[in-house]
Amino acid sequence: MTTTAEQDRIALAGLLRLVEPPAPPEITAMVRTHGAADTWRSLLGGRAPTAVMRRVQSRLASTTPDELRRAAAADLEGAARVGAALIGPDDPGWPQEAFAALEVVRPYERARFAAPPLALYHRGGRWRCPLGRTLSLVGSRAATPYGTRIAVEIAADIVTAGGTVVSGAAFGIDGAAHRGALNAARHAPPAGSPPTIAVLACGIDRAYPAAHAALLDSIAGAGAIVSEYPPGATPARYRFLVRNRLIAALATATIVVEAGRRSGSLNTASTAAHLGRQVFALPGPVTSALSLGCHDLIRQGRASLATGWADIARDIGPIVPDPDPHRPGSRPTDLLDETAAQVHEALPTYERTTVGAIARQAALPVPQVLSALGRLQLAGMAAGETGMWRRIDT
Amino acid sequence: MTTTAEQDRIALAGLLRLVEPPAPPEITAMVRTHGAADTWRSLLGGRAPTAVMRRVQSRLASTTPDELRRAAAADLEGAARVGAALIGPDDPGWPQEAFAALEVVRPYERARFAAPPLALYHRGGRWRCPLGRTLSLVGSRAATPYGTRIAVEIAADIVTAGGTVVSGAAFGIDGAAHRGALNAARHAPPAGSPPTIAVLACGIDRAYPAAHAALLDSIAGAGAIVSEYPPGATPARYRFLVRNRLIAALATATIVVEAGRRSGSLNTASTAAHLGRQVFALPGPVTSALSLGCHDLIRQGRASLATGWADIARDIGPIVPDPDPHRPGSRPTDLLDETAAQVHEALPTYERTTVGAIARQAALPVPQVLSALGRLQLAGMAAGETGMWRRIDT
Repeated sequence: MTTTAEQDRIALAGLLRLVEPPAPPEITAMVRTHGAADTWRSLLGGRAPTAVMRRVQSRLASTTPDELRRAAAADLEGAARVGAALIGPDDPGWPQEAFAALEVVRPYERARFAAPPLALYHRGGRWRCPLGRTLSLVGSRAATPYGTRIAVEIAADIVTAGGTVVSGAAFGIDGAAHRGALNAARHAPPAGSPPTIAVLACGIDRAYPAAHAALLDSIAGAGAIVSEYPPGATPARYRFLVRNRLIAALATATIVVEAGRRSGSLNTASTAAHLGRQVFALPGPVTSALSLGCHDLIRQGRASLATGWADIARDIGPIVPDPDPHRPGSRPTDLLDETAAQVHEALPTYERTTVGAIARQAALPVPQVLSALGRLQLAGMAAGETGMWRRIDT
Repeated sequence: MTTTAEQDRIALAGLLRLVEPPAPPEITAMVRTHGAADTWRSLLGGRAPTAVMRRVQSRLASTTPDELRRAAAADLEGAARVGAALIGPDDPGWPQEAFAALEVVRPYERARFAAPPLALYHRGGRWRCPLGRTLSLVGSRAATPYGTRIAVEIAADIVTAGGTVVSGAAFGIDGAAHRGALNAARHAPPAGSPPTIAVLACGIDRAYPAAHAALLDSIAGAGAIVSEYPPGATPARYRFLVRNRLIAALATATIVVEAGRRSGSLNTASTAAHLGRQVFALPGPVTSALSLGCHDLIRQGRASLATGWADIARDIGPIVPDPDPHRPGSRPTDLLDETAAQVHEALPTYERTTVGAIARQAALPVPQVLSALGRLQLAGMAAGETGMWRRIDT
């Protein structure tokens, strides 16, 4: 099991700060060919090809390379303080299959949103996102009681069927979808897949909307929260649209529960269709403005009408149970690199401790400890919350 | 302008009594080749080909030819008593284009319902049914307030756009469709097309359901009521299904407003699709059992989702205004045969009179007067109600 090398992880954090998502294809290609660390160095040194430099020159002009290097390290630490870690394309658990579609669609209409993320911050121990078991459930922020009720029910049905509900943690349908998934998970904890994943349009350390802070903690506790934005990044209209491509890409199908004619969830639906993913829309009363978007999608042949999970399951086929994430015959710790094994050893099992205490115990520098904690959390072998960590024995 | 000859009209009345609709293809073909009068005589005399005789032998066995002849004449008189007349394929106003589809589909699944009617009783002076301007609006008898409201609105929109609403006069959506059409016609009387037409599954002289007697009178007053069953015929489950093919055939598109999973309106929708007509279904709350049938139709690609008349109009194109039924430069009475002209002369303009009084005034036998009254009514030149008639000058 390869993981992202330490220098690459810091470089990825730097790239997320330097390059506003979606990353231009030239930079994605450069990272793939030369690695994150080399790309990062070339960009900071102004040695990348002109076409690439042009894409980052405005941010490079307003700050020095040293400041950027420090900001990247600070981002990783800031993420770790809220129990988050950075995952890159070389890490196990990176949703390779899901994101592959984001490269294929580049020539098409939604090209500007097509690039896969360079890396993702994730918070919550159960970051697993197998494409065939993940459904995105989206809709209007100003949902009606009817839409809210349906979103809760479908989300619960998805989780009960062994699936994962991906949404955007917004008010209305998003929130109802996450809550429905969490409720179902409490009653029948799913075996492998996380019940729900929230994809943010802001830094992983921010609760947006603020009123959903407790909900976001619950999502992280039972599932995961992810973001391609550096810690501290503020949500913005453009970022919601860019974020929507990840919601669409992570899911085998996108379900629009309730949407007005100008709802952002229509953008997610459109992206999902461009990615070749199935799109479903729930009908509602023709007298409801919040069903207009859904009816348009169905009428225009851009979504299949679904009245509930049964219709969707019939179309997409059964959700295959998540296989055991650990291969039989091997101990999970066998898969750890030496640093991660040392950090795992240093973690307490029955209480939580700070990163500083772990670093002292393991005799390792803090950045290495943070990086190792991220990998351990990813493997379900450590749990972090508000900067306090404990070991999970698997 | 040819019209059905007197002997053919009595023969058609007899055939409607002898042959339970839908007529077997052998009898339809025989009428087309040899005419109604010859076919009727051959059947009564047992001289038709064996395959044809087999289709009518049970009814012939239970009655004598003379009784059947008397019954046919009595049917025309019974129809006339309620202001109805018989129209056949040779009469102007026969919906040739609409019914042509009923012959084409014969090889397909719904073959048993495919035959065109041999003739139709019609009541109401405005029996005109131009295919391009006619929409059928059907749905559940146990409609919800939501469905009822939509049916009323769409029907009104159709009439306001210059179209005709065809339905089955049942409780629920049917009734709401007729009422919506009548309301709109009261506010803005349409120029050419009747606002609404009811197709019955029983005799034209029966009010079914009884609670809709007043509604049926209003429909006949502003539009028309039609039936292929002889006067006195009782409604039966089978006859509703057979009747539905006429609702589907008469309309350029069938609109299902609200339907449970077992609603008869799904049968109308299915027939319409087999006839190559467009089918629309209105969505509703997924929590409503009375929208399940509509959602099934849409989900299975058997109907287009429509949220209202605007969606339908966009798909079927504009309703062309009904051309003036009377050719310019000719007086309507020029088109009458001698008998009809005599009867028209004998009709009072400002009061109503009985068929007997008209017969005395015109010095013509009652059956000829009845037949002429039917033709005059068809041409919008006479109005009959419960057996009392008056002239309409055009």
